[in-house]
Amino acid sequence: MWEERIRHAKLRERVVSADEAAACIQDGMTVGISGFTRAGDAKVVPSALAERVKKTGEKLRINLWTGASVAEEVDRTLVEAGLVARRMPFQSDKRMREAINQGDVMYVDQHLSLTVEMIREGQLGNLDVAVLEAIAITEDGWLIPSTSVGNSPTYAMTADRVIVELNTHQPLDLEGMHDIYVPGPRPHRDPIPLIEVSDRIGTPAIPVDPDKIAGIVITDRDDHFSDLAPPDGDTERIAGHLIEFLEHEVRSGRLTETLRPLQSGVGAVSNAVLYGLRESRFHDLQMYSEVLQDAAFDLLDTGRLRFASGCAITLSPGRARDVLARLGDYRAHVVLRPQEISNHPGIIRRLGVIAMNTALEADIYGNVNSTHVLGTHMMNGIGGSGDFARNAYLSIFVTKSTAKGGRISSIVPMVSHVDHTEHDVQIIVTEQGLADLRGLAPRERARLIIERCAHPDYRDALREYYEAALRLGGHTPHVLEQALSWHVRLRDTGSMHP
Amino acid sequence: MWEERIRHAKLRERVVSADEAAACIQDGMTVGISGFTRAGDAKVVPSALAERVKKTGEKLRINLWTGASVAEEVDRTLVEAGLVARRMPFQSDKRMREAINQGDVMYVDQHLSLTVEMIREGQLGNLDVAVLEAIAITEDGWLIPSTSVGNSPTYAMTADRVIVELNTHQPLDLEGMHDIYVPGPRPHRDPIPLIEVSDRIGTPAIPVDPDKIAGIVITDRDDHFSDLAPPDGDTERIAGHLIEFLEHEVRSGRLTETLRPLQSGVGAVSNAVLYGLRESRFHDLQMYSEVLQDAAFDLLDTGRLRFASGCAITLSPGRARDVLARLGDYRAHVVLRPQEISNHPGIIRRLGVIAMNTALEADIYGNVNSTHVLGTHMMNGIGGSGDFARNAYLSIFVTKSTAKGGRISSIVPMVSHVDHTEHDVQIIVTEQGLADLRGLAPRERARLIIERCAHPDYRDALREYYEAALRLGGHTPHVLEQALSWHVRLRDTGSMHP
Repeated sequence: MWEERIRHAKLRERVVSADEAAACIQDGMTVGISGFTRAGDAKVVPSALAERVKKTGEKLRINLWTGASVAEEVDRTLVEAGLVARRMPFQSDKRMREAINQGDVMYVDQHLSLTVEMIREGQLGNLDVAVLEAIAITEDGWLIPSTSVGNSPTYAMTADRVIVELNTHQPLDLEGMHDIYVPGPRPHRDPIPLIEVSDRIGTPAIPVDPDKIAGIVITDRDDHFSDLAPPDGDTERIAGHLIEFLEHEVRSGRLTETLRPLQSGVGAVSNAVLYGLRESRFHDLQMYSEVLQDAAFDLLDTGRLRFASGCAITLSPGRARDVLARLGDYRAHVVLRPQEISNHPGIIRRLGVIAMNTALEADIYGNVNSTHVLGTHMMNGIGGSGDFARNAYLSIFVTKSTAKGGRISSIVPMVSHVDHTEHDVQIIVTEQGLADLRGLAPRERARLIIERCAHPDYRDALREYYEAALRLGGHTPHVLEQALSWHVRLRDTGSMHP
Repeated sequence: MWEERIRHAKLRERVVSADEAAACIQDGMTVGISGFTRAGDAKVVPSALAERVKKTGEKLRINLWTGASVAEEVDRTLVEAGLVARRMPFQSDKRMREAINQGDVMYVDQHLSLTVEMIREGQLGNLDVAVLEAIAITEDGWLIPSTSVGNSPTYAMTADRVIVELNTHQPLDLEGMHDIYVPGPRPHRDPIPLIEVSDRIGTPAIPVDPDKIAGIVITDRDDHFSDLAPPDGDTERIAGHLIEFLEHEVRSGRLTETLRPLQSGVGAVSNAVLYGLRESRFHDLQMYSEVLQDAAFDLLDTGRLRFASGCAITLSPGRARDVLARLGDYRAHVVLRPQEISNHPGIIRRLGVIAMNTALEADIYGNVNSTHVLGTHMMNGIGGSGDFARNAYLSIFVTKSTAKGGRISSIVPMVSHVDHTEHDVQIIVTEQGLADLRGLAPRERARLIIERCAHPDYRDALREYYEAALRLGGHTPHVLEQALSWHVRLRDTGSMHP
């Protein structure tokens, strides 16, 4: 079985057990693994490492780099074994999050397009070992990735040693779906020649020097996909407001019914918004996004979506079975790119992407917090939202107007942490309505956000805050001593309600 | 004199007085004028408009767009005459600032690369009249700009009517120094073909349909340049720390002695830092920046700087006389571009620019406020700092550690407004020292920023805040009720000192 997947004859001799492969990971090393949104992550070598440390009791702490979030098997297992000293550039695991918030893991939360630029130019230290999932190894010894590309091309290029997890369970039909392009060295770099969403500009496999391949581990594990919360009344209303807005943009001649290339953030709300497009008048849509979730494939199936470019395929378990069995149907309509290309600021600006991302909270002036609960505790990370929001044709943020049964207002006087500044947020949508902030000054935004987006239960308090702030004046009026008082109340009483 | 500067014979018949030209500006109109950092701004038509309104007492309020900041003649005169309803995308005038902070002028503070994308795509409304300074009009009726390019190419393209201020005082030797390139319409836009800092990719003049030229006003006024504060001990120390750091980067192999293309923000501190390079070991430098100030020309004179790309030349009055008299010497070494090109996210990423911008304040986690005094009152605006900081090879922010005779600490527990998030700030430098934040988690950044950058008078209080915050935990520890207390104290007592 696996023999056919290693087309470079000499490399067949490098097949080792997971334990043997993990043996090359030592204390203090930096380990870069494949994986983006739980898709295509390294699955068995990290576990073997954790097992070894549990058995031997050796002191071992590594610096763990990924594409983005990875499965529990990796983050949780490693962090519970106390193995992770540092983590970059994104995570979404409960146990990892706890360790980060306790200060046990130093977490570097980065724009997802940026990491590999810094690594290639030596700004983040040496990469000792890369552990990369592949579905096959080509005659040249190059790696054909599986359900994500992430940062793997640069990890393969820069690591001292490469371990391959050859996953025989991942369908060979994924071959041909990837487009591997690594921008040249700076400062004399050619323009990235991607003009259309569907352009292929690179190679189908990840170049790697076969001499660096220290071991190949044969695995057959599934990606650890999980179910998304299904659309509910609130997410349907959010989608409805957004579609109404986009229809208005078409009527006013700023957009056509094919819209612009769409980016949709990860998670249930963004997925639900995309679902909403199924019933819309828009057609021949394209996505230029990070993660392709269930809704992207539903839109491809209905023919509403013509092409989807991403850097990972992350599906619910049920949908995954179906999609992975029919990859041949999708291959002409889907491409997976390295995350520095899927999220590249210059390409997002060039294509004029419509970016839809999720806010944890937004303030009355349009600043968005995507990462920190109460301004202090990391949820997941900024991910690619900053790459898209700042460079988009339209930068849209969606959130339900309240959380935790109404005890938290997602619209606050001042966000407790800023990931997206007032300069980068053009549209805010909640189930209550949509605020179009384009070309508006902060005082104009405040009235609109309060009246259109805030939950009615919190509108009076927001109006009171804003009126009090207005009496103190300024371009962006605030009562500084009350600006974060809603968060203090939440922290102390469990609710933002006065 | 002026006849020779209008090479399109028929257009010579369109010469009018400033009053006649201003007559086409009516209540409610949007007026886009040339000008960037007081260079190359429209000078006489705005004044004539203000005069007219003063005389007639008519009710007239306009929406005023520029490149960036313009001279008093424009901002102050118009705002004092009550003419400005809205202002975009940058200003730095005292009187305009007051009107903005009082809520009399709705100010839209934008990334300077973004404005024209939104205008061309109809997202900010119709441009009724453009008033653009030129040194000459070509045989085709195109405009040769003067000391800045700014947003003029798009204003010329999109305005219903164009008024030219033909400035006979601006030297004709400026001709050939501009490179006008406007990216094509999205979503099928070709890559911008700029690969080297010195590349010329466009035309020497701004295309305009001659039929749209409603009037040509002959003027001979100087740009309203002003003196920069000269380097002082503190700015020299900032420059010293930065050069030491860059030398360290060269020694560690990450940079060569030619560095990377440099961007330097506007103002005395940035100018002083550039001055510092005169005595350094670096050579064959290049700038890919927004505004070329005195120091850029000093570096060109010494041969230390090989080429400077910008979108405006803003000099002290003394230096201006000298530079404008010797433009022939500089033409092979200087190019002026539209601000969407000088500040283009994709090109900044492609070139790997070293970006140096000024912070108003930074917090212990590396967030930067560039715009709002006390979180509420607008100073100038974000300008191009966000275009550069997010996409740079190195994103550096400089500030003196204190202001107002020590009463204000520029390093605070939490910034009162965020323009540059923790994700976009890699190096912070004060006269006290330099903090290299690359690859560090917030807790690591805090210790470094406090110990290296904060003024000794404030270090104990910052340490106390951080220790108290640590007891509450989190990825980014804060004591929310105290996070903005330094600003409240400053507001109430005139000092951040306890």
